[in-house]
Amino acid sequence: MARLVPRSGDAVFANVERVNAELFTLTYGAIVRQLITDLEEVEEVNKQLDQMGYNIGIRLIDEFLAKSNVSRCVDFKETADVIAKVGFKMFLGVTASVTNWDADGTSCSLILEENPLVDFVELPDMYQGLHYCNILSGVIRGALEMVSMKTEVTWVRDMLRGDDAYELQVKLLKQVPEEYPYKDDE
Amino acid sequence: MARLVPRSGDAVFANVERVNAELFTLTYGAIVRQLITDLEEVEEVNKQLDQMGYNIGIRLIDEFLAKSNVSRCVDFKETADVIAKVGFKMFLGVTASVTNWDADGTSCSLILEENPLVDFVELPDMYQGLHYCNILSGVIRGALEMVSMKTEVTWVRDMLRGDDAYELQVKLLKQVPEEYPYKDDE
Repeated sequence: MARLVPRSGDAVFANVERVNAELFTLTYGAIVRQLITDLEEVEEVNKQLDQMGYNIGIRLIDEFLAKSNVSRCVDFKETADVIAKVGFKMFLGVTASVTNWDADGTSCSLILEENPLVDFVELPDMYQGLHYCNILSGVIRGALEMVSMKTEVTWVRDMLRGDDAYELQVKLLKQVPEEYPYKDDE
Repeated sequence: MARLVPRSGDAVFANVERVNAELFTLTYGAIVRQLITDLEEVEEVNKQLDQMGYNIGIRLIDEFLAKSNVSRCVDFKETADVIAKVGFKMFLGVTASVTNWDADGTSCSLILEENPLVDFVELPDMYQGLHYCNILSGVIRGALEMVSMKTEVTWVRDMLRGDDAYELQVKLLKQVPEEYPYKDDE
């Protein structure tokens, strides 16, 4: 079979089923509010959002691989580029830039210019410790784990906390060798 | 100013910001799971989903009026048509049909052929009392309340419970007269 050409983020996004972004934003806001009411502790809310994201990420990766025609990345650098240019575009309709690589190419930052999760959101002072978008870090961590990469994903900058951008640090902890049969061959 | 022509659901949907439907579906699933864990009682989960939907609906109505160019409906019949053909399309990318009108035109059913909320969902027997999509009834109730209609919105049929369609009954309880200045004139 001829190798499929990976699609651009725009092409993929145009070809997937979509819903209204504002509905998504408000629905996500409802989750965060619910968790704050239930769990009370901001740290617990951060943890739960990350866990929810992880559960979503381990399922979204299939849709991503099926629709994007992306095949195995040669290294973590390429992985980060694919997340930024295809992944964010395909799911949220925005793109990220990749920067702040460390010397051995195992840690970088994804910078979001736009972030549909935070429209109309302002954090009251009492919730300054909240990582409002923590579902995103969980999604990335979960999705990468399904393609054999153990990562740590943390917020470095957050505009809701007064920073000038949304910056997620993605650190590769361990590359787990895939066992035969490889996913690509299925 | 010339009167704006209302847009079709397709035209509106093409012009709004959108996100990936599967991301929305999985995110909504995460809410439902969270509520089941927190509240335990299925009836309580139904109530909370409806309340979340209501809170979303009272805000989505502004986006709807701004983007759809729909002006005041002459009667509840027209309102139901607009929800089915423009509202569902604009937010979920699907359309509904309107049926089962009562004699005095104050109660009808919205039938959904497609329902992006329920992809990959199966209800275990112990949750048969769950109205999984109850956020939708809340959204409709909240949105209509903002345009002076008190309604009761209930599920009549639910495919997750083995029915052959998704059917929402919308009953107009009270039309609250708007006070001057009217919303249309703002």
